[in-house]
Parts: sequence; C-alpha cells; structure tokens
Amino acid sequence: MRFDEAYSGNVFIRSHQNYEDSQAVLYGMPMDWTVSYRPGSRFGPTRIREVSIGLEEYSAYLDRELEDVRYFDAGDIPLPFGNAQRSLDMIEEFVEKLMADNKFPLGMGGEHLVSWPVMKTVAKKYKDLAIIHMDAHTDLREEYEGEPLSHSTPIRKIAELIGPENVFSFGIRSGMKEEFQWAKENGMHISKFEVLEPLKEILPKLAGRPVYVTIDIDVLDPAHAPGTGTVDCGGITSKELLASIHEIARSSVNVVGADLVEVAPIYDPSEQTANTASKLIREMILGWVK
Amino acid sequence: MRFDEAYSGNVFIRSHQNYEDSQAVLYGMPMDWTVSYRPGSRFGPTRIREVSIGLEEYSAYLDRELEDVRYFDAGDIPLPFGNAQRSLDMIEEFVEKLMADNKFPLGMGGEHLVSWPVMKTVAKKYKDLAIIHMDAHTDLREEYEGEPLSHSTPIRKIAELIGPENVFSFGIRSGMKEEFQWAKENGMHISKFEVLEPLKEILPKLAGRPVYVTIDIDVLDPAHAPGTGTVDCGGITSKELLASIHEIARSSVNVVGADLVEVAPIYDPSEQTANTASKLIREMILGWVK
Amino acid sequence: MRFDEAYSGNVFIRSHQNYEDSQAVLYGMPMDWTVSYRPGSRFGPTRIREVSIGLEEYSAYLDRELEDVRYFDAGDIPLPFGNAQRSLDMIEEFVEKLMADNKFPLGMGGEHLVSWPVMKTVAKKYKDLAIIHMDAHTDLREEYEGEPLSHSTPIRKIAELIGPENVFSFGIRSGMKEEFQWAKENGMHISKFEVLEPLKEILPKLAGRPVYVTIDIDVLDPAHAPGTGTVDCGGITSKELLASIHEIARSSVNVVGADLVEVAPIYDPSEQTANTASKLIREMILGWVK
Amino acid sequence: MRFDEAYSGNVFIRSHQNYEDSQAVLYGMPMDWTVSYRPGSRFGPTRIREVSIGLEEYSAYLDRELEDVRYFDAGDIPLPFGNAQRSLDMIEEFVEKLMADNKFPLGMGGEHLVSWPVMKTVAKKYKDLAIIHMDAHTDLREEYEGEPLSHSTPIRKIAELIGPENVFSFGIRSGMKEEFQWAKENGMHISKFEVLEPLKEILPKLAGRPVYVTIDIDVLDPAHAPGTGTVDCGGITSKELLASIHEIARSSVNVVGADLVEVAPIYDPSEQTANTASKLIREMILGWVK
Amino acid sequence: MRFDEAYSGNVFIRSHQNYEDSQAVLYGMPMDWTVSYRPGSRFGPTRIREVSIGLEEYSAYLDRELEDVRYFDAGDIPLPFGNAQRSLDMIEEFVEKLMADNKFPLGMGGEHLVSWPVMKTVAKKYKDLAIIHMDAHTDLREEYEGEPLSHSTPIRKIAELIGPENVFSFGIRSGMKEEFQWAKENGMHISKFEVLEPLKEILPKLAGRPVYVTIDIDVLDPAHAPGTGTVDCGGITSKELLASIHEIARSSVNVVGADLVEVAPIYDPSEQTANTASKLIREMILGWVK
Amino acid sequence: MRFDEAYSGNVFIRSHQNYEDSQAVLYGMPMDWTVSYRPGSRFGPTRIREVSIGLEEYSAYLDRELEDVRYFDAGDIPLPFGNAQRSLDMIEEFVEKLMADNKFPLGMGGEHLVSWPVMKTVAKKYKDLAIIHMDAHTDLREEYEGEPLSHSTPIRKIAELIGPENVFSFGIRSGMKEEFQWAKENGMHISKFEVLEPLKEILPKLAGRPVYVTIDIDVLDPAHAPGTGTVDCGGITSKELLASIHEIARSSVNVVGADLVEVAPIYDPSEQTANTASKLIREMILGWVK
Repeated sequence: MRFDEAYSGNVFIRSHQNYEDSQAVLYGMPMDWTVSYRPGSRFGPTRIREVSIGLEEYSAYLDRELEDVRYFDAGDIPLPFGNAQRSLDMIEEFVEKLMADNKFPLGMGGEHLVSWPVMKTVAKKYKDLAIIHMDAHTDLREEYEGEPLSHSTPIRKIAELIGPENVFSFGIRSGMKEEFQWAKENGMHISKFEVLEPLKEILPKLAGRPVYVTIDIDVLDPAHAPGTGTVDCGGITSKELLASIHEIARSSVNVVGADLVEVAPIYDPSEQTANTASKLIREMILGWVK
Repeated sequence: MRFDEAYSGNVFIRSHQNYEDSQAVLYGMPMDWTVSYRPGSRFGPTRIREVSIGLEEYSAYLDRELEDVRYFDAGDIPLPFGNAQRSLDMIEEFVEKLMADNKFPLGMGGEHLVSWPVMKTVAKKYKDLAIIHMDAHTDLREEYEGEPLSHSTPIRKIAELIGPENVFSFGIRSGMKEEFQWAKENGMHISKFEVLEPLKEILPKLAGRPVYVTIDIDVLDPAHAPGTGTVDCGGITSKELLASIHEIARSSVNVVGADLVEVAPIYDPSEQTANTASKLIREMILGWVK
Repeated sequence: MRFDEAYSGNVFIRSHQNYEDSQAVLYGMPMDWTVSYRPGSRFGPTRIREVSIGLEEYSAYLDRELEDVRYFDAGDIPLPFGNAQRSLDMIEEFVEKLMADNKFPLGMGGEHLVSWPVMKTVAKKYKDLAIIHMDAHTDLREEYEGEPLSHSTPIRKIAELIGPENVFSFGIRSGMKEEFQWAKENGMHISKFEVLEPLKEILPKLAGRPVYVTIDIDVLDPAHAPGTGTVDCGGITSKELLASIHEIARSSVNVVGADLVEVAPIYDPSEQTANTASKLIREMILGWVK
Repeated sequence: MRFDEAYSGNVFIRSHQNYEDSQAVLYGMPMDWTVSYRPGSRFGPTRIREVSIGLEEYSAYLDRELEDVRYFDAGDIPLPFGNAQRSLDMIEEFVEKLMADNKFPLGMGGEHLVSWPVMKTVAKKYKDLAIIHMDAHTDLREEYEGEPLSHSTPIRKIAELIGPENVFSFGIRSGMKEEFQWAKENGMHISKFEVLEPLKEILPKLAGRPVYVTIDIDVLDPAHAPGTGTVDCGGITSKELLASIHEIARSSVNVVGADLVEVAPIYDPSEQTANTASKLIREMILGWVK
Repeated sequence: MRFDEAYSGNVFIRSHQNYEDSQAVLYGMPMDWTVSYRPGSRFGPTRIREVSIGLEEYSAYLDRELEDVRYFDAGDIPLPFGNAQRSLDMIEEFVEKLMADNKFPLGMGGEHLVSWPVMKTVAKKYKDLAIIHMDAHTDLREEYEGEPLSHSTPIRKIAELIGPENVFSFGIRSGMKEEFQWAKENGMHISKFEVLEPLKEILPKLAGRPVYVTIDIDVLDPAHAPGTGTVDCGGITSKELLASIHEIARSSVNVVGADLVEVAPIYDPSEQTANTASKLIREMILGWVK
Repeated sequence: MRFDEAYSGNVFIRSHQNYEDSQAVLYGMPMDWTVSYRPGSRFGPTRIREVSIGLEEYSAYLDRELEDVRYFDAGDIPLPFGNAQRSLDMIEEFVEKLMADNKFPLGMGGEHLVSWPVMKTVAKKYKDLAIIHMDAHTDLREEYEGEPLSHSTPIRKIAELIGPENVFSFGIRSGMKEEFQWAKENGMHISKFEVLEPLKEILPKLAGRPVYVTIDIDVLDPAHAPGTGTVDCGGITSKELLASIHEIARSSVNVVGADLVEVAPIYDPSEQTANTASKLIREMILGWVK
C-alpha cells in the first residue's frame, strides 16, 4: 500500500498527497478467489486508476471539480492470494483504522465479498446504518456449495447483522428462489430490474440516516459493463446508474461510505468497463463526500 | 448427438436425463456456410451450453425454476460442413421425429437458414400455424446472388408455404426495398424497429393459435449482442427482448416451437452474447414450455 | 488518394465511379497524432469502408437507396504522420477544391481536429453557416497542455471564427469547467447529455440556413461505440443518433457538409463501431445529400 | 472483381494498373464453407491486402523490389456463399483465363479446397507439372463425413489427377493413419514435421520441371500464425518458411503458379498472421515471378 | 463429474464410455484461487476438451491412434471456489480411488498447486517414485506471502515428501535465489532453460522406475502458450515439448501418472494454447498409457 | 513525472525510492505520433511497469537480484501530444540532467524516434560512443514522406552525428534498398536477420568503448512480440534476445545507456509483449548497470 515506502502502484487522478488531512480514502481490495464463475476482478482497482487519467476533473452533472475534495488513494490492500478469511480480516483491520480516523471509506473491488468486512465495520460506528445495494444479483445466499465465504453471500451477512429491514436492494434480476423468499419473509426491500425510480421512493424514507452504498458493476447491463465476472442481460444503462448516484447525492441521506466492485478488466478489450467505473468513482467522490 | 454412444459435447444446465419422458428437446444446428458476411455461428450452440453453467436456475421474471420443466438437450445435429441442402434435410428429419414424439422443438443456430426446415416441419403438424419472427433483417429474399439456399431467405420460404398473412416480423431495420414491398403487397406483417409495443397489438389477434417463434439474436442492438454475423445498430435492448418473451408467455397464443439463431461467439470476447442467449433460452423454456 | 493512379485502397459500397459528376465526395482524414488518450482513429476510414460491404443499400428509415445519390469516395488524404499543421493544411486544400467544384463534403476521421480545416473552408463559402455538433466532449479548449493544435480544440476554433452563437452542441457530458463557462458567457448553445429532444427545439430556429454537421462517434454511449479514443459512459443510443440524423433530414435546414470522426477500430474486436459508423454514413448520404 | 466497374475493394501494395501487360495476377478466393473447424478465411485476402501497406517494397532477402515485377491484383472472385461446387467452377473458369493469357497465377485463400481447381487447370497446361505442398495436414482424404468437396481433400484430388509421385508434401504433422498409408503405398512424398532440409533434397530432383507451390499458412507453428482455422502446434517458424521460399527461388525448378491459403484474420487480434502472409506474398512475387 | 447423473460438461474426444474397464482416467481440477498473478486456469480443462474436437485421432509422431487406448474422461472435480484446503482434499480423495482401481491418472489443471495432492497420493502407491517436472518456474517456495497453500509451492512439498533427489526439474527460468539454492543444497536436479537435451541425460538414470510427469504449460515460451497465468519469455518451443514427451515415451521409465496444468484460455483469443494442450494430452495418452 | 508532487503513475518493481543516490534512472517516453503504421506505443512504459509485478526479482541467467542495483523509476516524461519537435526537446533536456548527474539512462518507448535525442545527448558526454542497434528495420531514412521527424530516421540521425562506422545494427530484415546501400557505402555495420552470432564477432572490437544499446522490440519475431507497431515475421526468438543481452553483459564493452522501444500493448491481448519487455528491462538493469 501507499503508506509503505516501496509502493509501486498508480493512484487515482488528483489523489491527495497525504492521508492525514484527507476527507476520504480510496482503496483497492484485489480479491477474486471465491467467485463461482469468471475470476479477474483482482485487477479492477489498478485498471480503474490507470484509465482515470482519461477523465475530466470536472463533473458536468454536479458542477464540481475533483480539486474540491481531499481524497487520498491508499493503493491496494495486499491481500493473500487464495485465503478468503485472512483477506477479510485484513480489510476489516484497514477499515477500522479509517473509521477511527474519521475518513470516508471508498473501496474498489475485487469480488463482492470484500464489501462484507467493510459494511460490518462501518456498522459498528453508525448504529442506525442503512445499506443501499445496487446489483444484478441478490447475494443473499448463506453459503455457496458449502462455503460460507462466497461472493454470493455478503448482503445476507450484513442483513443478518443490522437487520434485513435496513437493507435496500435495487436492480436485482437474478438469484435463487429461496433468496427472494428470505428477503420477503424478513422485510428486506428488493426492487427487481429497476434502480432509479424505486430509489426515488425509498430515499425520502432514509432521510437523515447514515447510509453505506455498495454497487456491483453488474447492475449495469453487459452492454455497458462487459468486463465483469457474471454478465447478466436485462440490466440498466450507465445513464441510469449515473442518475441514481446523483439522486442519492441530492437526497438528504448521509452517505458515510461506499464501494464499487466486480470490475474484471480482462473480459473487456475496449476497456469501457474500467473507464465507466472510473467515471462512477469520480461522481461518487464529488456527489457523496461532503 | 447425445443419442449417440460417443457423445462428447456438453449439455444445457439442468437438462433432463432422457429423451423419452421429456416435454421439450433442445438441439443445436451448427451451420454457418451460407452466410454472406461473418461466419462463426456454428459454435453458437456449444458456447451457449457452456456458459449456461453461470445461470441461476430460477427466473425472477417468471417465478419458475428449470427443474419445473423436463427438457432434454440432444446436442448438435452433425451437419455436413459446406453442404447446405443435406444439412437442411438432416434438420428436417430430426424435427420430424420430434413432431412424431410430441416434443416441443427448441433449436439453437447456427445461421437463420436452419429455421426453414424446422418451420416447414412444424407447419405440417399444426395446420393453422403462425410465425412470430424477431430479427434485424427481413430475410425475405428469394435468393442471394443466385443461391436459393441462403441465410437471407428463410422467412420468404415459410411465408410462401403457409401464406404471408400468417407471418409476423418485429424489430426489422434492414432489407432490400423489394423485400419490404413484397411483404406489403402480400399482406405480411412487418413492424419496423420496435418489438414489444407492436407485439402487444398482434398477440391478441393470434389468441389460441399455434405459434412458432424464431428469434435472430441480431434483433438486439449490437451493444447487447456483438457476437453475431451481421451487427446492425439501432436495435432493441435485452430488456425489451426479455419483456417480449414474457409478453408472449403471458398471452393466450400456444407456442409450439421456437429457436434462437445467429450467435457467433468469436466476435464477442466478453461472451456477453452467449451469456445473453443462454438466459433467453432459459426464459423461453420457462415461459413457453407448458 | 483515388485520383492517384496508384490508389490501392478500398471504397465505400456503391461509390460513384468518377468525381466529376458526383454530388458528394466521401474522403478519409487518417490523422490521430494530437489525441491525448488512445490513438488509432487513423484506421477509421479504411475500416468503415471495408465493413460497408455488409450494409443493405436501402434505408428502411428513409425509404431511399444508395443508387439514388451520386457520391464519390476519394479515399484517404495522405496526411504526413506526426505533423499536425501540415495535415490540416492538406485537408484545407482538399476541401477548397470540393467547395470550388460544388461538392458536398462528407469526411471521415481521424481525430476531431480534422474537422477544423473543413469547417473553416465551408464557412468561407457559406456566410451564414451554422454548426451542429454532436459529441461527448465540449472540444472548446484553447490548447491542450500548451498545444493549440489538439483534438480538444476544434469547436473553440470554429466558434471563434463564425461566432459562438452559430454553434450548437448536443450530447455533451464532459469538459472542463472553463469550457462550459466560456460557452455560456459567449452565447454558444450546449445541450448536455441529450441530443434528439433539444435538436427538435433548435432545428426550427435554423430553418433555411446552411448547416455543417460534425459528429464525434463518442456522442454514443461506449456500449454502442466502444471503438473510439475516449470512451465516456452516459451517452446516447445508436437509435437516438439515427433518429437525430433523420430529424435533421426532415427539417428545413440546408445541410452543406458533414463529418463523422473518432472511430478507432482496434478497441472494438466485435467491429460494431465500424459497422455502426458505416450505417450512419449511409443515412447521412441518403438523408442529407439532396 | 477489379475487372468490374463497381470494384470497391483494396489491392495489394504496388499492384500494376492493368491486367493486360502484367506478368502475374494476384487474386482472392474468399471461400470457407467446407472447413470442419473454424471458418473465417473468407476475409484472408482482403486483410492481407490491407496490411500490405505496412510492407517495405524491397526484399532484403532477395535484393529485389516490387516495382521490378508487373503483377496485377484482380481482387476477389465473387464466390457464391455456401455453394462449394459453383465456387470451384468459378475459380476454374478464372484460372483458365489466366492460363490462356499466360499469366502467373498467385492465389490467396480462403480454405485449401480452392487450390484444387487452380492446380487442375494449371496441370492442363503444364503436362509435367509437380506440386510442392507445405502444410500441417495431409489433405489426402477422399471425403469428409461424406462430403467429397472438403478442405481435407485437395491434395488427394490433385495426386489422383497427375499421379501421386508428382506431389511432394512438407511439414506435415497431422492426418489420418489411412492418409499416410495411402501416400506411402502410392509413392507420394511426405516429409513429416520439417520443410527446409527435405526441400533441399527434393528440389534438385525437380530441376527444370514446372512446379506449382501451394502453401497452407498452418504449416507455420501457431506461434507464428495464430490466425488460421486449425491451429496445430509443432510447426515451423516463419524464418524457416521464408528460407524455403528463397530456396525454391534459387533452385532450378520453374515455378508456374502458387497460392497461400487458410489465413483467417479474426483469430489473431495482433494481425501478425495477415502481416506475415503479406510478406510471404511479397517474397513469392519477388522470388518466383521471373 | 461424469459419474454423476446430472453431468452436463463435455468430454475429451474419443473418451471411453465407462470408467470400469478404462486404463487411464482423464480429469479436470478447475482451481485457480491461489495464483499470485493472473487467474483463469479454472476454465482450462473445459476448453481443452472443447477444442479436442479439432484433433486428428492419429499421431503421426507415435503412429498410434486414440482408439488404441481406453481412457475415461471423468469430467471436472467440483472444487469449492476459494477454499484451497478443501479443494486439495477432494483431489486427494479422487486420486486415491484411481490408485485403488489401478487407473493411470491424467490430470488437467487448474493451477499447479493441484498437482500436490495427486503426486502425494501416487507416491503412496509407488514407493520408488520419481518426479519429472517441466516448468518455467521452480515452484519451490515454502509459502507465498505467508500462505503455505500457493501455486508456488507444489514441487517443494513433493520434494520434501519423497526426497529432493527424486525430483527432476527441466526448463526452469524463474524463481527466487533461495529456491535455486535450496535445490542445489538438497541434491535436487534443476535443468535451467532447456528440456530435451538434459532429459536425454537423465532418463537413462531413471530406467525402470515409476515416474510421475507434471507439465506446467508455461514451460513453453509465451509465443507458444500465451494463454497461461504467468507468461515468461525465453521458453522452449512446442516442437521441443512434443519431442520431450516422445523421448519419455521411448525411454524405459515407467510413467505411472501425469498432468498438464496452468492453461488459462481467456488470455489467448486465438485458442492456440488450448489447442496445443489438447494435442499434448493426446500425445501423453498415446505415448505414456501402455 | 515522479519528481512532481502530483505523480499518479506506477513504477517498475523494486524501483529505488529517490533519484539522488540511484545509479540508473528508468523513464518513459510515451510518444507515438510519427509512426507510419500502428500507433499505441505511448502506453508501452505504463504497461511494462504494471506487469513488472509478475516478475521474479532474481535473474537465473545472471545470478543477481534487483535489490543489488539502485535504479530510480522517474515515470513518464509528459510529452505534448502530436508535437514531435517539442517532445524531442523535452527528452533531450531530461537526459542532459541525467548525464550531468552521472546516471545511467534506461529509457522505455514510445516509438523509436525517441532514441534520437537520448543518443545525441549521451554522445555529447562520451566522445568515443558506439551504438548497438537491434531492430527489424534499418531506420536509416532521411525523412518519411517529407517528414524528417519520423520513427524511420533515428539511426540515420545518430549515424550522421557520430559517424556511421560507430553504429552497429543487428537483426535487420526490412528497409528500403537505398537504406542498405547508404549503410554499405558509409561503412556502417548491418547484420541482417541474426543478432547473437554476429554480436559475438563485433563485441570484442568494441572492447573498452562506451556503448549505447537501443533495442526495438520488433527485432523479435511477431510470435514473441505481437504487441508492437510494425509486426515483421522472420525475427529472432526471445531466447536469442536474452542471450544477446547477456553476451553484452559479459563482454568488455562499457554500456553507458540503453533503451527498449516500440512496445504497443493494445495489439497483444495476452500481454506477452509487455511481460517480455519487463523481463528484458530487468536483465538490462542486472546485466548492464554495474
């Protein structure tokens, strides 16, 4: 990581020069070992940073510039290949530091399981935390073929921790029958297929509450994000996802942390997915870090 | 094919174990020799099966699971490379058996010409058959540069066999002037550019009739299906195509067979096209095989 | 170029056989040396021509065929690699000849800077010229890191030449804060994010005026045009761009020239971008060359 | 074809301007419908021409320049998609004209079956014709799964026509047991695995004889030619193939025609195969057309 | 796996129909979770099987046909994603069954760590076992950044189990200084850079002994095997690797098991790596299963 | 650049932490605007650094580790897009600083023209400088289609500056007739096709002299380096290039600077070219920086 003298990686465009007086901390969680389909999201954070050089620093959507926010890109957490439990422990430890230092955590995956230790840690600090979850998949499994540490489980884990009624999923189009049933029976919100319109209905109900937003890039249609592990047609456009980010920015919820996961560059020779992720990160910084 | 002892191919996820007590039969028609632009759809069926492993078995759209339907994946018909006539004869012979055994034929192309022997055979059994055709192209040519066996001709052939007034095309955005004129003069329905809205108007008129649905994957915009022979912009989204499949499922037409053709995996390194086709096949099974 | 005996390139499908009695002239400007991100648009014109063989010659949108228009494809202007100024001079000289011979100039880029000498030359002939500009980017910079000859500057240059009030940009979603401010302060029209709807409002105001239309392919969402230098999500669909071309065709403005730039084939293995560009060129010919 | 007024394709670099006073004629045979594995060689000739623009016109191997030879690139023969027999007839007719006009035929495939009508026609003119065949595969089948018109059969066909003792195969590493046996029993020469060394032994024996050379690009190892239908490891390097062409050029055989087949560009994003083929064509022109 | 009724995968060409009377068993170990660089070898076995359809069944090298050997392709062992220990246990259990049933184990990876439980199990049965190891990397680490279960460790593990003097590595060109030192100090054989020539020296010394051969596809130069996790230039050709397999076949060692690992198809759009692996598997079957 | 506070790029693995006490300085020259064929080498340095993370830090060839050398990666010189002259000036200025500070310059291109200002500056310091040049191309043109600043000219420029008798080219296989003649007439050494063997003859003649080594990655056969602007078959293997680097390292010439140019990552989806370049850089550091 960048705290380390030997840091050799790149950083997101316009990253602040030091951790101490930054408001937000950007960090990568390059883990993809529990995915059940196509691996490769370990290279997501690096590629998102690399293509960030092609970004404008100004958002025509939010009329704000990157220099208006002090965010520090800490690089990737050096996760041990193939060891899921130890990886999650390291992420947790890292985010605990961010919480202690009052930093806004902005994570880049990596597979979706990395969000679990982050959300758990954020929930310790913010007692009334709600989760906004945008994804093609429910991610509500208890385990995957016997493995409780799987990329199919993070939303279930956080729902059980903070209560399913505090978790709001949007854009969901795939999952097991049992997952949808569990959500229904336990009072968890799931908006199938759509994001922006149902979000407009939910946001007012969360007014004033601390909210963590976790975005799986596959909430986008594969046309807009081919570079991901599980491509699942019938998704939303990048326009709708941008508008959803802006809708949250303009609402009265208090975003206290966020992540963007499952960018797997190798499956997208055009690099549109990494470029899109990079723009989404910019909008998340400009819209959510106050 | 899978009836053969030496079968070495894969099968679609959750395929039933035997032909005899199956309701539907899934089969590949790996022919691409008459295409005028980019070949490669011969590998469509195999790749669609391969990626089916990434599918959920439950449809959040239809609230139904694959285990609720008994479909048997028979593998690919071993078509003779470069011999169009003999290939069509073999397809015809195969579908005749399905008809005799009262199986729902669910074919995977291969180029669109493979639909012709299927539709012809289905039409023998169902006297009042109507065709629903979703495609970017009219496919109404009599021949292509002198060849009557061409991927540009199957809809013309079936229209001449069962009467143009029984053929309904949707999503069409390309063709020769003469093809559109022929359709108009002969009372054949063509909805240009759109699928879902005009389908909603036509379906009630077909209530109770046996219908065969043939879908060329290029009815989708290339953004949603880059892996096909002829990419033609201005198409529909995968969301609209899914909704169209569901609209048919909820209507009172009697779907008696269907196919999905022109998936050419090589042009799509992200594999989104094959993954999309695989999900479409799942929805066709769950929505149309009663 | 094709005037040259030794011409070895291909030409757009159905190109007229001679320059003299053609109405329009199609030409390539294979320059990409000033781009700040990904080069490769030098191969745009050649690939657009190559894939034009897959096009239907009839437009189902406009009910018109390519044989109804006499357009001559002159091939690529042999621009000197790495020399921006001399390249622009050669383009200017070429277009001056077209103006003198009363040809409709229809250019293919190449990077967007190539539009500058074309627009300048067209503006000499048509005193009341207006520019319609479709793009993801403002292209209103005065220079890029010290270079006044940059792909980020052509709209600024033409706006300063003919007056910012005569320039109308659509679909813009990226730029520097200063660029948007300059436009606002100088009375230049910018429609952010959208093209078709604002175009419908502007076109009546331009009725009867000569208009040059410059289209950067990246006005399309990367889902629809991954093969370009700078992929920027949140763009319009190819359906909307086609409709915008047709809207202009049906309006009472007098299109006197046009170009389509920034197609960089290498980033799109599916070739959908080149195929889309090829269809757009067909619609531009059929819709705008009267 | 280029004789046709409406010719829209490209031509090989430095192609002569007219057919009449040319020594050699370069032509494409864009057929790939009988291949049993991966199609796509129909686009070989066009892509070879396109990348020829990157070639030096001088050969440092042969100390000769392209302007020293008058070769006319006639473009592609417009073969009917999916009709093997009619395609072969058209090729035969075309080559008959070349023979009548005393042109050196230099063909580009397309699949290997296209060499059959060429060799047959050349054999009519040169009674003592010998064939030099470089390939990974024997191509000695009588039929492929019942089809006598298959890309696996051309060498068998010519061997039966002119006598197996007049056919010399090099670099062969794949085939059926029966094919090798047939060759052995019928006195046909097969050099397994190697090309250059055995060629040095055979060439003196052919001194003074008319020779047709047919090269399947897959004689190269896939490392050197990934863009082909059937990639088969264990092949020779491009250095060895170049040296073999030069060895023939320096020998006292009389090369009277040649072809290079099975370049399928889509499988090679680096385009090295097409670029290599383009350089091989240059060396064939400079070395063999006297 | 294929023993399972619900088996949906493909099998290697000409696989025997039942396990019981087979001599050898082919199986996939689709694990890639501990790799430190590029994942994706989980898809190796499936793709190798898929492209095996393009293979000739006859080896021109060994003059033997696949029908001469009874090998059963058991499909992939269903390894739990992201759980290295449980995966290794399942592999061990599977190979124990093969040993008990006197089958020749022929494994396909997956990452190289999968060879560890196989070699361990084979070593239990054959007390005098020697290992022939072809690889670009030493794989002699004790752990990788703290993880003892890493793709960098399998050769160390087996060397410690059966004694370093019984392990013979060839083609090695990368590793830590400490790894080379450990080998030297412990009497383990390492041939740097070359395979065939040193193998010719070692084989006589192993005459009559049971030998397990583990081949990492990256022993090949990246030119010959770009589709692997860690591409490391300076490797051997596919010709040399084929010759090495044949050298072993002709020697008097007793090959009692083998594997081929680290094929990661996604990095090789030409599929030459999978095709090469498929041919290597054929030669391993024909050469080593007596 | 990395001297700059806002540096956001990555650095080569194990790069030293400060410039001052480093022996060598690694730097990128991301320029590709004068190339006549395929651009994209501007991204070479960044990608080489990125993949360096996959390198072993120890060389099994030279028995030396990266920690044994203090090299500082200064990042990329921020060259102005499309302005060749200003770019060359900036490179010259940068290298002048390195010369003043007694650093070993180790450059990464970018196109080959970037070597010109480096060699010129090094030649100012070392009066008796010789150039060792490995390349597929002569690069001896005076200009390219009128442009004296072209990637085809750098060797001509340095030869004219220090005298052609001090320039030694190896591996050359392409160029204009005039270029070879100029070399011959002016006493410049050119070894056609081969590198290692002729190098062994030349090195003793250069004993004790200061030598700058410039390597165009396309000296490798495209099989070994598909990711470059101009792929030209018939080249050497990566094994031979590695051996050549080591031959120089073991000789008694005094290497005083070096570069590796023309890596264009986009043309190589397998990334083997960047990985190979990264290993070559490691060997150049370990072998040449004493």
